Amino acid sequence: MTRYRLDLAYDGAGFRGWAAQPGLRTVQGEIESAIATVLRLDMPARLTCAGRTDTGVHARGQVAHIDLDAVDPERLERRLRRILPADISLRRLRRAPAGFDARFSALERRYVYRLRDSSGSDPLVRRFVVSWPRAVDVPAMNAAARHLLGEHDFAAFCRKRAGASTVRTLLELQVTRRAGVVETTVRADAFCHSMVRGLMGALVAVGEGRQDPAWVVDVLDGGVRDPRVKVMPAHGLVLEEVVYPRVRDMAARAEETRQYRGEPGDTRQA
Amino acid sequence: MTRYRLDLAYDGAGFRGWAAQPGLRTVQGEIESAIATVLRLDMPARLTCAGRTDTGVHARGQVAHIDLDAVDPERLERRLRRILPADISLRRLRRAPAGFDARFSALERRYVYRLRDSSGSDPLVRRFVVSWPRAVDVPAMNAAARHLLGEHDFAAFCRKRAGASTVRTLLELQVTRRAGVVETTVRADAFCHSMVRGLMGALVAVGEGRQDPAWVVDVLDGGVRDPRVKVMPAHGLVLEEVVYPRVRDMAARAEETRQYRGEPGDTRQA
Repeated sequence: MTRYRLDLAYDGAGFRGWAAQPGLRTVQGEIESAIATVLRLDMPARLTCAGRTDTGVHARGQVAHIDLDAVDPERLERRLRRILPADISLRRLRRAPAGFDARFSALERRYVYRLRDSSGSDPLVRRFVVSWPRAVDVPAMNAAARHLLGEHDFAAFCRKRAGASTVRTLLELQVTRRAGVVETTVRADAFCHSMVRGLMGALVAVGEGRQDPAWVVDVLDGGVRDPRVKVMPAHGLVLEEVVYPRVRDMAARAEETRQYRGEPGDTRQA
Repeated sequence: MTRYRLDLAYDGAGFRGWAAQPGLRTVQGEIESAIATVLRLDMPARLTCAGRTDTGVHARGQVAHIDLDAVDPERLERRLRRILPADISLRRLRRAPAGFDARFSALERRYVYRLRDSSGSDPLVRRFVVSWPRAVDVPAMNAAARHLLGEHDFAAFCRKRAGASTVRTLLELQVTRRAGVVETTVRADAFCHSMVRGLMGALVAVGEGRQDPAWVVDVLDGGVRDPRVKVMPAHGLVLEEVVYPRVRDMAARAEETRQYRGEPGDTRQA
């Protein structure tokens, strides 16, 4: 078998998330079935991704791998592009470097959450920019964000999953305002389930003045899912980028990640 | 009667253009009927816009006016926002300054046409960025664009309309590439029917190397609709802005425009 790397973008609106589920339209399901059609496989080959996006969450920089009998990757790329639906874009399909694992080799994931808090939405971007009914204060959100950087147990911001660790390293959490849109960039080694949307809910509570910036420390220290933290709507969230090490460090990184964070379903998002 | 100015944005995908037509979903029709509902009018009041966008063309900076028995504009704005469909956004509704006419007072209209010419589309923006199958050369397009600036008879680039003048002043035609997207900004005092999409068709022919930049002079000098000029797809086009004079010049500008360009339907777009 040969391993191939796929770089993908998709509009999450039409999918019940990434992960294949019988009878539901999912990103993984659509791509696996397109590959099975093109290669005339009896059983779909299994696709593994870097960030398992939830229902409604989008991606511009999703990365996945798949193991196949050797094929011409450029030919397969062309043929897949012809049959994939309009809401999935295959940016690139190439033979993966030695030791590559889309999930376990990743060093970090970068997401951006977008909302517009001024009255009057922009209908052209309403599918990926949330219309928020109240104004938010960006400096207050950044003051809160600084408290959350670094390695912590983010259980308070995540949906619980039995047995899965919720310790993560938050590398960046930065809010900017440009042309009426409030953009929050979130980078971490990995994310637990619904963590970005939970973090956003906490930042928005601070941005609206309902909580002080230091309140997020209280929430974080609670150590369990906090009902005061609202999970923000999925359609504002885009997986923008997954960062991998240099090729010669790929296998070592995958081995290291597998050892301390090997639980299934553990890189879920939203 | 009191005149009100409406600032509007819309996603053109779901409309048969701006202009009301019996039995078809149009931007004008939707807004006129929303106003009639809110104010319980027996007959819809007539809305006049600055740029009558064609089927599929979008707007972020459309401006319109309507004459009504005096109302509280902020209250009307709030009530309209509650019932307008998600693909129309009422940015602002205010009492219009003296002498204001959305169509005839306008000094210039600015449109942007967006296409992506690299393989692999961005599914999040596919509704307003055209996926173009061949690469285009931006400097060549700009060389062609420079030949078209100024006052000319643009009949070669327009759909014919009996009796309507096709003399226009092109103030800007500028192509830039940013993050894989080729953006063309077009500004003119006004546009004749399908002129922007015709100009784009000519620039793309040059950008692909099928024609030399100076070829557009040939086309322009022809003075009649040129079959070599393909009209580009509507969904890449956005009416971004309409510019008006200072309030004290508003009435004079409207009078001046009416005199030399008073034909109905003459500010159509796409």
